[in-house]
Amino acid sequence: MYVSDAVIKRLPTYLRYLDMLLADGVYRISSNDLGKIMGLTPSQVRQDINTFGGIGRQGYGYPIIDLKKHIEEVIGVDKPQNMIILGAGNIGSAIVGYTGFGDSGFNTLALFDNDVAKIGTFVNNIPVKSLDDLESFVSNNDVRIAIIACPAKFAQSLCDRALSAGIKAFWNFAPVDLKLNGNAVSVNVSLSESLQQLSFRLKQLI
Amino acid sequence: MYVSDAVIKRLPTYLRYLDMLLADGVYRISSNDLGKIMGLTPSQVRQDINTFGGIGRQGYGYPIIDLKKHIEEVIGVDKPQNMIILGAGNIGSAIVGYTGFGDSGFNTLALFDNDVAKIGTFVNNIPVKSLDDLESFVSNNDVRIAIIACPAKFAQSLCDRALSAGIKAFWNFAPVDLKLNGNAVSVNVSLSESLQQLSFRLKQLI
Repeated sequence: MYVSDAVIKRLPTYLRYLDMLLADGVYRISSNDLGKIMGLTPSQVRQDINTFGGIGRQGYGYPIIDLKKHIEEVIGVDKPQNMIILGAGNIGSAIVGYTGFGDSGFNTLALFDNDVAKIGTFVNNIPVKSLDDLESFVSNNDVRIAIIACPAKFAQSLCDRALSAGIKAFWNFAPVDLKLNGNAVSVNVSLSESLQQLSFRLKQLI
Repeated sequence: MYVSDAVIKRLPTYLRYLDMLLADGVYRISSNDLGKIMGLTPSQVRQDINTFGGIGRQGYGYPIIDLKKHIEEVIGVDKPQNMIILGAGNIGSAIVGYTGFGDSGFNTLALFDNDVAKIGTFVNNIPVKSLDDLESFVSNNDVRIAIIACPAKFAQSLCDRALSAGIKAFWNFAPVDLKLNGNAVSVNVSLSESLQQLSFRLKQLI
């Protein structure tokens, strides 16, 4: 199934708005009203939802609980997924703090580092393990997602090693574009680029 | 000056690649070669750089140090900028860990919270202050950037208060779209949405 980047980016936003509606006690919504609160046209909403095998009947609006469940399945967050963090420095620790916080359906099982001072310690109750244990840990714990949280210069070699260990998806916080083989995916998180964008917009304002 | 979102997003990427070139001892580069390593066409590179008042002479390539300095000025990261973090919970603390790490030109001066158990403590040597001190702190310390790191339900009211205090730019980690008046800017960081995108791509792969 080909799905455009624009739609992929909108799916989590649908979940966010559907959660808000449920919290407000709303259980059914038209494409018109959903479009209005999300800043989309009704036909965009219908098209997005149809992309994944439609739900709801013409003229009746969408049943929100079903729609939410459907989108969660499409995204793959209907079941918890195991993750590991490669790098137990400031960035890795920060991510533990962040991901440990959510009800997100993602479990961070361990951090990995090669610094003997860190191995055996815990960050927010998550253990820091030796990189020597990476391969066995990944295969024993059904881990397919790795978070790259190391300095840029180590990112590609860690990525290569994780690929060999069976990792299929990389959430990449290092400021490099990872080279993957065909059978893996990555999404970059460019925090410093995001902050620089803000700075630019601020400068334009003044 | 109108600058498209696409160009704004590319500017930090230019900085990242120019830094890599300088680290490799390269001091001059053609639009051709710069485009190649960045995955852009030479004419896109020339157009981007011309948007901000060109630099370099036809046929000579760009002097990298000058170009970098120029882009830093355009972005507004040529001088350090003061920031505060609104919310000293998991997310706020994670961001301190992250921003404290960089050589980014951004200084995090303080976190603000209304939890008396947190006020007076430190996160990575950055003080946690009472929200009661927000207005005086912002005006005494030339702070124009605030990081929203509170739960979604408090984000807009904290934003409103920070706007009144003189904040002009919001780096927003809360999963809401902030309503600003005309004279302020914001950039959203949607970490959970980014992770859900990764999950979706992983699911498509399998």
